[in-house]
Amino acid sequence: MTGQAANEGMDTNEAWVIDGVLAAGLRAGIKVADRPDLALLSFPDGATWTATLTGHALRAAPVRRTAAQLAAEPRRPLRAVLVNAGNANACTGPEGVVAAGAMAEAAAAALACAPEEIAVASTGVIGVPLPVERIEAALPGLRDALRPDGWMAAAEAIRTTDAWPKMVRREIRDADGSLLGSIGGIAKGAGMIAPNMATMLAFLATDLALTDAELDSHLRAAVDDSFNLAIVDGDQSTNDTVLLAATGRAGRLRTADAARAFAAALAEVCAELARSIVRDGEGARRLAEIRVRGASDAAAAARVARAIGNSPLVKTAIYGGDPNWGRIAAAAGACGVPMREEDLTVSIGGVAMFEAGRPRPEREDAAAAAMAGHEVLIEVVVGAGAGQARVWASDLGHEYVTCNADYRT
Amino acid sequence: MTGQAANEGMDTNEAWVIDGVLAAGLRAGIKVADRPDLALLSFPDGATWTATLTGHALRAAPVRRTAAQLAAEPRRPLRAVLVNAGNANACTGPEGVVAAGAMAEAAAAALACAPEEIAVASTGVIGVPLPVERIEAALPGLRDALRPDGWMAAAEAIRTTDAWPKMVRREIRDADGSLLGSIGGIAKGAGMIAPNMATMLAFLATDLALTDAELDSHLRAAVDDSFNLAIVDGDQSTNDTVLLAATGRAGRLRTADAARAFAAALAEVCAELARSIVRDGEGARRLAEIRVRGASDAAAAARVARAIGNSPLVKTAIYGGDPNWGRIAAAAGACGVPMREEDLTVSIGGVAMFEAGRPRPEREDAAAAAMAGHEVLIEVVVGAGAGQARVWASDLGHEYVTCNADYRT
Repeated sequence: MTGQAANEGMDTNEAWVIDGVLAAGLRAGIKVADRPDLALLSFPDGATWTATLTGHALRAAPVRRTAAQLAAEPRRPLRAVLVNAGNANACTGPEGVVAAGAMAEAAAAALACAPEEIAVASTGVIGVPLPVERIEAALPGLRDALRPDGWMAAAEAIRTTDAWPKMVRREIRDADGSLLGSIGGIAKGAGMIAPNMATMLAFLATDLALTDAELDSHLRAAVDDSFNLAIVDGDQSTNDTVLLAATGRAGRLRTADAARAFAAALAEVCAELARSIVRDGEGARRLAEIRVRGASDAAAAARVARAIGNSPLVKTAIYGGDPNWGRIAAAAGACGVPMREEDLTVSIGGVAMFEAGRPRPEREDAAAAAMAGHEVLIEVVVGAGAGQARVWASDLGHEYVTCNADYRT
Repeated sequence: MTGQAANEGMDTNEAWVIDGVLAAGLRAGIKVADRPDLALLSFPDGATWTATLTGHALRAAPVRRTAAQLAAEPRRPLRAVLVNAGNANACTGPEGVVAAGAMAEAAAAALACAPEEIAVASTGVIGVPLPVERIEAALPGLRDALRPDGWMAAAEAIRTTDAWPKMVRREIRDADGSLLGSIGGIAKGAGMIAPNMATMLAFLATDLALTDAELDSHLRAAVDDSFNLAIVDGDQSTNDTVLLAATGRAGRLRTADAARAFAAALAEVCAELARSIVRDGEGARRLAEIRVRGASDAAAAARVARAIGNSPLVKTAIYGGDPNWGRIAAAAGACGVPMREEDLTVSIGGVAMFEAGRPRPEREDAAAAAMAGHEVLIEVVVGAGAGQARVWASDLGHEYVTCNADYRT
């Protein structure tokens, strides 16, 4: 891991366009805050697409609508994605389902296509009726604002309490260095980062040509190794959505090398967006990457890693810069995965503080120094098995309490 | 639930003795803090006994020793329990096992009995060698301090960061009002309450005569409905122990009514101690009792209740007095238990804020008023099943962050 600037995940020094995609964002007044809250990504010639959706039992109305679109045979090409901030349209009853449909109809009318070709997503407060008439009123202006380089406006409009907009773009090059195409996306934060906004959203697009099935497979793998590693408060939200669209303008991937290059670029974009989300806690001081190995299998390793990343005692120690390996060991041992003290090693910033069952207090200064930066690597070896896993976790500090205890009152 | 004073769980206005038990506490200097840190409960004529122990994978040396004692056939009578604060003797390697044995030998020498008749327990920092020589040096004085009314000194000595000592005693009366005997105990807090002290300890004694097997059965039931309902940071610790001893001085329980009276008194003592632990967070403002019903079975209900009680977003809202039912619904729906929005009801302080899938924002003022006290009742109905469960959860505020982020530095 390397130290990164606070605006990690925001690329501003390159031509930020994806061939075949137009984007826009503006203020529709969905919540009182005087900031943009409605974003539109448009694919004028249509796009193949896929999405990964939350497994939450109380999925928001827009998520249920997207799931139905993905299940349709055949899947309709996508013409646009309409996203609002300020209201999650979750726990809103049958009216919420109607409102999600009305969002799609308004976008379809503005873009002269069918509602079935529009995906919608929402993020914000739970349990408040969506003021869909404000979205309808804003759509003609939003459509007129669509531009190839409108991604930043869209990234701004999907923010809730995110400290910065999140945009990442990569060029995809063949083994010989020739440009195959590009992939880019925007995201917003989740859970601890966006209290009660309760949603992680990401919208990705490439100019390459891939089938829906190819996109399904690529996205699932990339999400498992990026957004699914991000721990903020341990909960899935009602609205989590990662959507990937392919416009096809740059043509098909013709070789296995080219397909690997696409997969690698997609993985990079997802990982950088996910890390940016974890780092964007209100007042979060540092990101912890937690790596676990030596478990019986990957699932056991992931269970240990998540237990550490979710522990409030570990997260407050990370906030305080305290190399408190005892809390890490205690969280690891409490999660139900069998382990023996004499097999356990806990390292902080590369410094083994507990080594095969032996405390190494003489190394505490070195471990404390390793915690001074914006990132800290926590490594835990639980045995001799082949199972390994990692997660990214935010810390837990006063700013989190302030934001979450007081924001509504 | 009723409002209770901050020193709930501390009975000072009655004769605090259990026939057949002597108790003492003093300062052995195990950690630098200038406070008592060594407690002894003695049963001069021996006692039947049992204990429930942590399921943590890295059980501390004293816990492993106690487990072996409980597994011995036949179980030896207990002559004393020696408990230190300031050092958990966990993750201390083979030396920790030797140290736990040395504690028992020192107590046995002072009390002229066998080490196998001594139980030991520890609480405090993890991964630091136990200075057992300080315990050995303190034991003659500790033995000399043993008194029938020494329970308060013992309760003081097992505190780590607990804001107050925890003692509860009940008389056990037959259906006709006649006194059968008494039961009492002391406890200290866990997890979030005792950061990195990572331990919940409770030591209970009765003057009634029960077999080891009867005690096993009674204690398991009582712990499941008391200490196991206490959520502080969601983790079991390396050292959690609840021990129950019976001196037999008051004779056997001769009727089913008498046995029920004993079980009820034990349950009350355990519940009051457990609630006192949850309320004793550093700076915790209020305790939440979370009741879930309508699940398919009790296990599913417990999963929902624990998910709510463990959610940092819910806990910060409780701290802030914010009747944020959306966070409660979001936590419930994220835990993997199937539920439908239209079946879900979330009530705060008896006020249904989300009723069978419909938000009731007009009731927010009433719910906010219900959160003003030291306790708040959160009720969640997830369906029409018969499964129900409850937990007690502390809130999450600035004092928690201060204590846990900074206490070692």
